[in-house]
Amino acid sequence: MTEPASPPIYDYEHDPAAIYRQSFAIVRHEAELGILPAYLQSVAVRLIHACGMIDIVSDLAWSADVVARARTALAAGAPVLTDVEMVAYGIIRSRLPAQNAVLCTLNDPAVPEMAARLGTTRSAAAVELWRDRLAGAVVAIGNAPTALFHLLEGLAAGWPKPAAILGFPVGFVGAAEAKLALSDNPFAVPYLTLAGRRGGSALAAAAVNALAAGVPEED
Amino acid sequence: MTEPASPPIYDYEHDPAAIYRQSFAIVRHEAELGILPAYLQSVAVRLIHACGMIDIVSDLAWSADVVARARTALAAGAPVLTDVEMVAYGIIRSRLPAQNAVLCTLNDPAVPEMAARLGTTRSAAAVELWRDRLAGAVVAIGNAPTALFHLLEGLAAGWPKPAAILGFPVGFVGAAEAKLALSDNPFAVPYLTLAGRRGGSALAAAAVNALAAGVPEED
Repeated sequence: MTEPASPPIYDYEHDPAAIYRQSFAIVRHEAELGILPAYLQSVAVRLIHACGMIDIVSDLAWSADVVARARTALAAGAPVLTDVEMVAYGIIRSRLPAQNAVLCTLNDPAVPEMAARLGTTRSAAAVELWRDRLAGAVVAIGNAPTALFHLLEGLAAGWPKPAAILGFPVGFVGAAEAKLALSDNPFAVPYLTLAGRRGGSALAAAAVNALAAGVPEED
Repeated sequence: MTEPASPPIYDYEHDPAAIYRQSFAIVRHEAELGILPAYLQSVAVRLIHACGMIDIVSDLAWSADVVARARTALAAGAPVLTDVEMVAYGIIRSRLPAQNAVLCTLNDPAVPEMAARLGTTRSAAAVELWRDRLAGAVVAIGNAPTALFHLLEGLAAGWPKPAAILGFPVGFVGAAEAKLALSDNPFAVPYLTLAGRRGGSALAAAAVNALAAGVPEED
């Protein structure tokens, strides 16, 4: 007869401040932050922290004004518009500098009918409902390529311009293309995006969180 | 004087059914699904779809009973316990087979004081509040390694066993270790996890969505 195995003992860091500190130290040690301009490095640290992948650094694309423009807009009380609830729930409300509204229109009761009428996805149709809030807003897209494409189409049609678009749609159909179109946008709308298929709500929310507050190590 | 540039015209797939179909076709074409047992392949397709990365296939770890056990539990009305709101909001409620409760205790008012008393993170303290709902539940962890470690500690101390743990914490401190501890759990609790630093709410929610419904192509 064998002895019953004793239960395992788990040795891990419990202190939230130490976890943050160690995480950001590892990211700064391992990631090639030096290829980014100084103003983008702390934002990149937070993005890497959110996804666990240091190699996203080389896929980031941005306009030089995006950090300053998004920070100024948020400080002035700009709303944050998101394509999915997951992004909205990833935004740390207490970090927002002006109790900014966070708005996701995807589950608005008007959306399914609009999507059918427009012949598009619910995510794209929901963007129609952003129009009145779009001027000077910070847009964070973490899921749907069609939402980003629809927004770009709206801008081409003369919609009001947001202060910044944080574009992180994910996936195999349209995500890389929508983010490339964002990088090439001729509307002079500031942007931050991640080229390719990778993306997601956690990255979109992390971008907002990074731009809403100061240095991530101060969390 | 140059002509003003005409606005760009975006050519992309608008039809949600076609987007799903093409996405899953690309995943099935590119991903090495053949290294997985048949019962896990459609779950893996949905996980890959959620993160845009075909190479997660080789980092998946699971117990042979996890798909059957989670499906049976959900069909029988088991609650889904999540570590963060983002996971809860990524779960497609209409896919749940029995109007299952989706419970996130992170923002319970008791949690901050408990975290301070236990000397741990809020995410880990929130797991204490799962105890009465844990027997037969489906656990989906998409953010905090400490939540997963705390759950394993509870199981070692004799807490009721969940039907399955879907473990996708992410990041640089403790995530890989917590997921390895889950894979090595001596409590015979069925599990599905992703080795290494990658993970996140989208993957945890996608795992629930895949196990809650049938074939992902039927979305």
